[in-house]
Amino acid sequence: MDPADKILLDHGSGGRIAHRLLRDLLLPAFDNPALAELNDGAILEVEGSRLAFSTDSYTVDPIFFPGGDIGDLAVNGTVNDLAMCGARPLALSAAFILEEGFPLEDFRRILGTMARAAREAGVAIVTGDTKVVPRGAADRVFINTSGIGLIPPGVRVASHRARPGDRILLSGSLADHGVSVLAGREGLAFQTTVQSDTAPLHRMVAAMLAAGGEAVHVLRDPTRGGLGTALNEIAESSGVGVLIHEETIPLKPEVAGLCELLGFDPLYLANEGKLVAFVHPEAAEAVLAAVRADPAGRDAAWIGEALAAPAGRVVMQTRIGGRRIVDMLSGEQFPRIC
Amino acid sequence: MDPADKILLDHGSGGRIAHRLLRDLLLPAFDNPALAELNDGAILEVEGSRLAFSTDSYTVDPIFFPGGDIGDLAVNGTVNDLAMCGARPLALSAAFILEEGFPLEDFRRILGTMARAAREAGVAIVTGDTKVVPRGAADRVFINTSGIGLIPPGVRVASHRARPGDRILLSGSLADHGVSVLAGREGLAFQTTVQSDTAPLHRMVAAMLAAGGEAVHVLRDPTRGGLGTALNEIAESSGVGVLIHEETIPLKPEVAGLCELLGFDPLYLANEGKLVAFVHPEAAEAVLAAVRADPAGRDAAWIGEALAAPAGRVVMQTRIGGRRIVDMLSGEQFPRIC
Repeated sequence: MDPADKILLDHGSGGRIAHRLLRDLLLPAFDNPALAELNDGAILEVEGSRLAFSTDSYTVDPIFFPGGDIGDLAVNGTVNDLAMCGARPLALSAAFILEEGFPLEDFRRILGTMARAAREAGVAIVTGDTKVVPRGAADRVFINTSGIGLIPPGVRVASHRARPGDRILLSGSLADHGVSVLAGREGLAFQTTVQSDTAPLHRMVAAMLAAGGEAVHVLRDPTRGGLGTALNEIAESSGVGVLIHEETIPLKPEVAGLCELLGFDPLYLANEGKLVAFVHPEAAEAVLAAVRADPAGRDAAWIGEALAAPAGRVVMQTRIGGRRIVDMLSGEQFPRIC
Repeated sequence: MDPADKILLDHGSGGRIAHRLLRDLLLPAFDNPALAELNDGAILEVEGSRLAFSTDSYTVDPIFFPGGDIGDLAVNGTVNDLAMCGARPLALSAAFILEEGFPLEDFRRILGTMARAAREAGVAIVTGDTKVVPRGAADRVFINTSGIGLIPPGVRVASHRARPGDRILLSGSLADHGVSVLAGREGLAFQTTVQSDTAPLHRMVAAMLAAGGEAVHVLRDPTRGGLGTALNEIAESSGVGVLIHEETIPLKPEVAGLCELLGFDPLYLANEGKLVAFVHPEAAEAVLAAVRADPAGRDAAWIGEALAAPAGRVVMQTRIGGRRIVDMLSGEQFPRIC
């Protein structure tokens, strides 16, 4: 490592360079099997129970955006990370870093949103922390939520469990959160009706697992880095190829339009209320029905399948008939999207 | 609330105004019994096991200080919050907010310190998160650690369990962490040999509980806000009076000297490797022996006792024979001490 090396915005992108940081610095430092699994949360055995444990810090800018704010984002984000482990969320923590001068009214509004999101998700915020730093040492408010969930017996979802032949389900339209935040930041919010999709997904997951059981191999919420990065992570962890079909991917016309306008690829924009699932074909229809029965899953669709080869690669059949490699997010920068 | 009201540095002090924020804004928003207990962590019942769950964000400035850095502080701090619930720490999360441009070498050094601290504490860092914000949106690095611990059967420590007659134990010298950070910040570090006391305390706690069982009523690590604030919290939660004797409080001469020089009261400076315990007299000697057997507890001392009155107040018998009320930290500002 060159001693002049510095943290770049890319290190937080969720993409290729962020993975390199994780593999080169964090995993070797904190070497342990739970962390090395690289799921959305760790799985711990405690006195015969299987617990999921997850953490995320939220630095989204702007803190208020169409369809949500940093508060419900922070609650739903960690609820969903637990859900992607197949867990039922039990409890959340909330830790705030506040900048001196931050309006109490904004803080109160964010706490209200968090409380409402926690109630809607049926999970309690049981412990917390508040730090204040001098003006200029942080930008308004950062929130960390961590969470504990309980994994029911028989549930075995993990990012390495995708198998050739699995069908790939996306629970709804792509890139709504990313576009709403970017539009808010660019002052384009007034031009669009796009809202963040921030929503808790644990009930949808419970229904999927009830319908599909162990046939549900992988669950992942494609947040930072988007669907493209999430599929690459799964392809790599499982050693399978992934083929997706562009024309089957749900995308709202106004999201597609704003992506064109702003020059962004919806495959790499963040989603905060969507999941991607790898499901054995035998359970495919039952799982899809379970997802569609959830209000957040009405637009769910099959978008592709896992293949034996090329292992670790994601390929997209495009609308015009060609094929393109979908790499991890690389080089593009969407700082503070969540 | 005046809409012009803003977050002040005092809101993060751990003192009076921070408590008001907690009681007026956070508790009503997140209303639930575990949070309302105001212990260092929440206690959850999960399938017959009692889990402790705690979170803390670290924003200390400077990030490297005599005796430690933000990394071991973050690990030991959450290990100790779990220990103060009587729990054996099982697993930690680590979430980083990094400023663009932060030297990778410094990040690597902090990760190394965290890994070493986790190994020494016998706890694994099992899940994590890394966010990067643009230059100027945060100051170098903030770390959140959250943790899960298991509370053995029969352990019943809680901040409301102090009873009149309890003896009050302090496990070692006061204010070492606070003075080391403040001296580092003032450029006085070269003038002093004072080092932060950052250390894990869960083994000491396990030994105390083995020796004293349910006679150990309250455990608290007097971090932000110091011993003065911690004692006030306990007095308030338990509805007891607290009398401490200044001459019995362990204080290193160089810490006393720097407090004089910098104009700080050691009662309100942070400690990161000390605990205060309220113990029924019948177990006092056994508990003291257990604490002194730990390397971090060699200078442990009895510093006072709980009384029936004045309920909720802390009084100090001073060295010169008078009595003074020890209030919660109020007005003074030590931002970013941890």
